[in-house]
Amino acid sequence: MATSIITTGSTRGKLLAASSAAPRLARLSTAEKNGILLLMADALESNTASILRANEADLKSSELSSAMRDRLLLNPERVAQMAQGVRDVAGLPDPAYETLAEWTRPNGLRIRKIRVPLGVVGVIYESRPNVTVDSVALTLKAGNAIVLRGGKEAVHSNRQLAEILTSVRGVPVGAIALLDSSTRDSVKQLIKARGLVDVLIPRGGQALIDQVTQNATIPVIETGAGNCHIFVDEFADFEMADCIVLNAKTQRPSVCNAAEKLLVHERIAAEYIPRIVRKLCGAGVEVRGDSRTCRLAAGMRVTPAQPSDWDEEYLGLCIALRVVPDLQEAIAHINRHSTRNSESIVTRDEADAREFLRFVDSAAVYWNASTRFTDGAEFGFGAEMGISTQKLHCRGPFGLAELTSTKYEVVGSGQVRS
Amino acid sequence: MATSIITTGSTRGKLLAASSAAPRLARLSTAEKNGILLLMADALESNTASILRANEADLKSSELSSAMRDRLLLNPERVAQMAQGVRDVAGLPDPAYETLAEWTRPNGLRIRKIRVPLGVVGVIYESRPNVTVDSVALTLKAGNAIVLRGGKEAVHSNRQLAEILTSVRGVPVGAIALLDSSTRDSVKQLIKARGLVDVLIPRGGQALIDQVTQNATIPVIETGAGNCHIFVDEFADFEMADCIVLNAKTQRPSVCNAAEKLLVHERIAAEYIPRIVRKLCGAGVEVRGDSRTCRLAAGMRVTPAQPSDWDEEYLGLCIALRVVPDLQEAIAHINRHSTRNSESIVTRDEADAREFLRFVDSAAVYWNASTRFTDGAEFGFGAEMGISTQKLHCRGPFGLAELTSTKYEVVGSGQVRS
Repeated sequence: MATSIITTGSTRGKLLAASSAAPRLARLSTAEKNGILLLMADALESNTASILRANEADLKSSELSSAMRDRLLLNPERVAQMAQGVRDVAGLPDPAYETLAEWTRPNGLRIRKIRVPLGVVGVIYESRPNVTVDSVALTLKAGNAIVLRGGKEAVHSNRQLAEILTSVRGVPVGAIALLDSSTRDSVKQLIKARGLVDVLIPRGGQALIDQVTQNATIPVIETGAGNCHIFVDEFADFEMADCIVLNAKTQRPSVCNAAEKLLVHERIAAEYIPRIVRKLCGAGVEVRGDSRTCRLAAGMRVTPAQPSDWDEEYLGLCIALRVVPDLQEAIAHINRHSTRNSESIVTRDEADAREFLRFVDSAAVYWNASTRFTDGAEFGFGAEMGISTQKLHCRGPFGLAELTSTKYEVVGSGQVRS
Repeated sequence: MATSIITTGSTRGKLLAASSAAPRLARLSTAEKNGILLLMADALESNTASILRANEADLKSSELSSAMRDRLLLNPERVAQMAQGVRDVAGLPDPAYETLAEWTRPNGLRIRKIRVPLGVVGVIYESRPNVTVDSVALTLKAGNAIVLRGGKEAVHSNRQLAEILTSVRGVPVGAIALLDSSTRDSVKQLIKARGLVDVLIPRGGQALIDQVTQNATIPVIETGAGNCHIFVDEFADFEMADCIVLNAKTQRPSVCNAAEKLLVHERIAAEYIPRIVRKLCGAGVEVRGDSRTCRLAAGMRVTPAQPSDWDEEYLGLCIALRVVPDLQEAIAHINRHSTRNSESIVTRDEADAREFLRFVDSAAVYWNASTRFTDGAEFGFGAEMGISTQKLHCRGPFGLAELTSTKYEVVGSGQVRS
């Protein structure tokens, strides 16, 4: 396999190359893009051995926690899944140049609003090498160039994957750039590359998101932070609440839509708090509680919650419980502390549920369901670039359509403005 | 009239108050919001005298250019227009809580995507006091709080207008904040108010936009820059081209959708350049040209264009001309130098036109029409907050709908993820 631009050259050179490649990507037909994606999928599978060798080199690093190792680990099955993911993207409708609206003005001007590629998409991410492949597939399908800046712990895996994807026939030169992950300098240049990069998508923990939003001069889509809440209302079905709380907390605690906080209505707290604390402890969850929770669960393994607990995203088997006086305080607590990802109310009362759904200011708000459903596939979107926790451009799970912008094409016959 | 929070207190205090007001604004019904808007319109008209007195105080400043004076000037007719603008906004459909999509998943989850208010909108602007009124009307109608930071040259006018609007019955405390325009400190605090302000809309010249985008840590909608181009193709109807060029350049040269550059296909340059230069000069337009334009218009008042001319937005009666070898170079020149606002091709050739419409990367791209139509009212949108020249969230003229975000309301019956 020929060594391509992606492994050599300066950050600036790669950004310039991506910017030059963008118009060529914008001109690829749907058939051309799908053809490239199918070749990419094949190339991933036929290069499984070299991908796993590169991955082994990453795994040999001694600094890895077991959670990090699991996120980083590739095996033949995971490589096949990545390839299938790329084929799935090839099967999705092409968002580029879709007509969103069309109308004629009284002066005869015909106005058409269409989707257009964004241009160059920058992705900054950590650990999981499949992000490299997913991001390339989605951005390319939408007609964009991509600049990737992965974590240094995945340097060999990401380089090998990017080499394979870039070497596929038909990929424009510069369309896929992988920046140096050994230095922070590449991040600094990327997040200030106004005029070269059109949007930046950080995919990772809060520290990464903060670093990017505090310092970027190009538009950002914030993703992935998740201090998610469940509110067990006074009218909750306790068995349903148990199932939802345990699922949202324990089914996959390391992800952003896992529950981190449990609010319980004071009218049912005396009954429900001991019950759910027992079940959480039984499931191996560390429980922290406000003073009322600690009192109600006296004798059980509950440690007092600190003020910082209400804002913390544990990303592990830990949860903090608070007793709230009413629905309004539950909503206020959530709007104060949530990262605006996913929240759920468990109740049989429709008025309480509607109030919660409407006025909890988060991307996805649930009534009687686990927060774990906030996910592109679970929503039926086909593929997901991330979960936006900001309010501009897109919110919640987003995929191909959100990797486009729009423009107005206006056709006249000599109209001038009077 | 009682003195309200808007004229006293620290920037931080005003931002906190706006943030607290946002949930109350989000709960206002359409009828309540429209009622407030109609009262605001009445209050503007019945306080015309005090508005004009305040405006006179601003106009007395000696530092004003005549263009600035014109932008700043209010008279009874302009006050009536502002009031009518507010009534027009009251008549528009309410975007808040509109259902955008609704579907049921195989597991029974019912998902609804709805528009929701953004929260707190920050607007930084210059000179024109009507921006104060327009911005308040639009943001309030969409269910948002607003933080205004106007120019110091309009301090008395803006304060008087904001006082009148804030004093209307039903406006939640803190919903409208006017920051101190005498110091840069208020801008600095506003653009870094993460967690308090949800979006920042700078409305003004390139220097203002640059200052905001370079330093803001909250999401920005860039507006208003306009280095707009007209390309007269080899297949152009010269008479139509004349009309469009003169209209786009001279009808209102101080606005962002006025043409600043004219590109001419070399096959027609020898005939068209002298013709249009004569007409432009006749219309009082200063003409700058590349070397070929200067040669072709020898003996006419054309000064050589400097490299910086191609990126400059004159905002006055000045235009720069360049001869280009073909359509591709016209598109490339525009994509290199344009601020991505509005561009137009004049041609009888549909293939050339379609190529230009599709691959010129600007918010609005025209075929045989003046660039001056890029405007919310001209597009039929009813009211306009600005013209976005960025690719995220919205592009081109934007109004009420773009002052909202979205959320997903998900209703289940105990679903958990397996």
